[in-house]
Amino acid sequence: MIHSHTIRVRYSECDPMGVAHHTAYPVWFEIGRTELLRSAGLEYASLESEGIFLAVVKLDVTYKRPARYDDVLQVETKLIECGRVKIHHQYTLCREDETLSTARTVLACIGRDGRPMEVPAIILQTHSASE
Amino acid sequence: MIHSHTIRVRYSECDPMGVAHHTAYPVWFEIGRTELLRSAGLEYASLESEGIFLAVVKLDVTYKRPARYDDVLQVETKLIECGRVKIHHQYTLCREDETLSTARTVLACIGRDGRPMEVPAIILQTHSASE
Amino acid sequence: MIHSHTIRVRYSECDPMGVAHHTAYPVWFEIGRTELLRSAGLEYASLESEGIFLAVVKLDVTYKRPARYDDVLQVETKLIECGRVKIHHQYTLCREDETLSTARTVLACIGRDGRPMEVPAIILQTHSASE
Amino acid sequence: MIHSHTIRVRYSECDPMGVAHHTAYPVWFEIGRTELLRSAGLEYASLESEGIFLAVVKLDVTYKRPARYDDVLQVETKLIECGRVKIHHQYTLCREDETLSTARTVLACIGRDGRPMEVPAIILQTHSASE
Repeated sequence: MIHSHTIRVRYSECDPMGVAHHTAYPVWFEIGRTELLRSAGLEYASLESEGIFLAVVKLDVTYKRPARYDDVLQVETKLIECGRVKIHHQYTLCREDETLSTARTVLACIGRDGRPMEVPAIILQTHSASE
Repeated sequence: MIHSHTIRVRYSECDPMGVAHHTAYPVWFEIGRTELLRSAGLEYASLESEGIFLAVVKLDVTYKRPARYDDVLQVETKLIECGRVKIHHQYTLCREDETLSTARTVLACIGRDGRPMEVPAIILQTHSASE
Repeated sequence: MIHSHTIRVRYSECDPMGVAHHTAYPVWFEIGRTELLRSAGLEYASLESEGIFLAVVKLDVTYKRPARYDDVLQVETKLIECGRVKIHHQYTLCREDETLSTARTVLACIGRDGRPMEVPAIILQTHSASE
Repeated sequence: MIHSHTIRVRYSECDPMGVAHHTAYPVWFEIGRTELLRSAGLEYASLESEGIFLAVVKLDVTYKRPARYDDVLQVETKLIECGRVKIHHQYTLCREDETLSTARTVLACIGRDGRPMEVPAIILQTHSASE
């Protein structure tokens, strides 16, 4: 299960070095996850309205080359593993043929009370169905 | 009712012009409001936990001089008017004697259902008591 | 000279009220200005590389209805006036037929040294040509 | 070389889950690095004005417990290693006795031209002197 989404670097995401601030990248990866989910027929917004929240518990980013203002980038998001309680994704951020960044995240499923819960069937099914 | 709060400009708030992005200022004004409220004995966090939300319905900012990375700034927040349904604040952002920006906001009181509600007694009392 | 651009509300732009934070709106308006300029054949990035910066000196936003996570919105950006030293824009933010926010900005032209400069011919021509 | 800095969670840093968005943490870690440097007698702003930039090339964050709006947190920043071309830091984010997050970053030294450069003597000296 893999999905590619296009984003354009915003002025407000860039810093005095003239490049995208390193905290902009995980925002784009989050968009990548949302769009991967949407491509599989699930909307994260509707999960939340049913009391299912996906919280980032681990984030690892490698920055290879800077993204610049107004660059058009591809965020490639790949589902690596959808376990009983955690979901693993991998990301590649590219500007044409150039890889700017790679990353991994681990998400945990959280209920409305903020406590961990098992990944619900609706997510498991979507994720296995689309592999 | 007036309060002065010190902030330091963050790197992530600055843009390729090397100055604070214009959207950082209303973030600082929001902190100013929170601290004004706190100085009057009220915590905004506890208002929200009671289902009272204050939403910005109007924001006017004048930018006179740029704030730079690592600048230490004073946010002066003044309560102008606390009406039956709306609260008006005025802000001055200074770097020592220099005024960098002035602003005004209007807040509306919103219930948990997202609907407008009258400004509750606890806010009215605090605001009149501290004038 | 008017341009409409579509944006989708990001999760990271939303606050504990479950709606887009009021500082997300001016970010979208900035994107609106950039895309208006692009539609007229000018890239803001190339202006900056020539030492021409457009700084926001005034921002007025009216918030009518909240934008929510994952909403698809139209940012309509209109050039109101391009004077000798300042550029005025007006914005309407819509979700389908519903107007969520209106706004105005005034930009000033700034040189690499941070000093005001006259709006250069390349901007004036583009802006009058496209009216 | 270790430094502890206090931050308060901003409303604009919190998301619809009612907790700080995961991208707020690396912003706080960046502040931690800046304050560690300052405590050693160096200002990052003055490094940049001399053409020395420190770019994040690796970021690893583990999120254990959520930070909430208005929480007062301690960011403990520790210099792990200052090599010839890279600087390693480690972070612990605490709310009183509770550890909310741990993280590591690797920084690379970049010149005004965007190319990697050796960590300059002024940084090396400060960092070894303060160990």
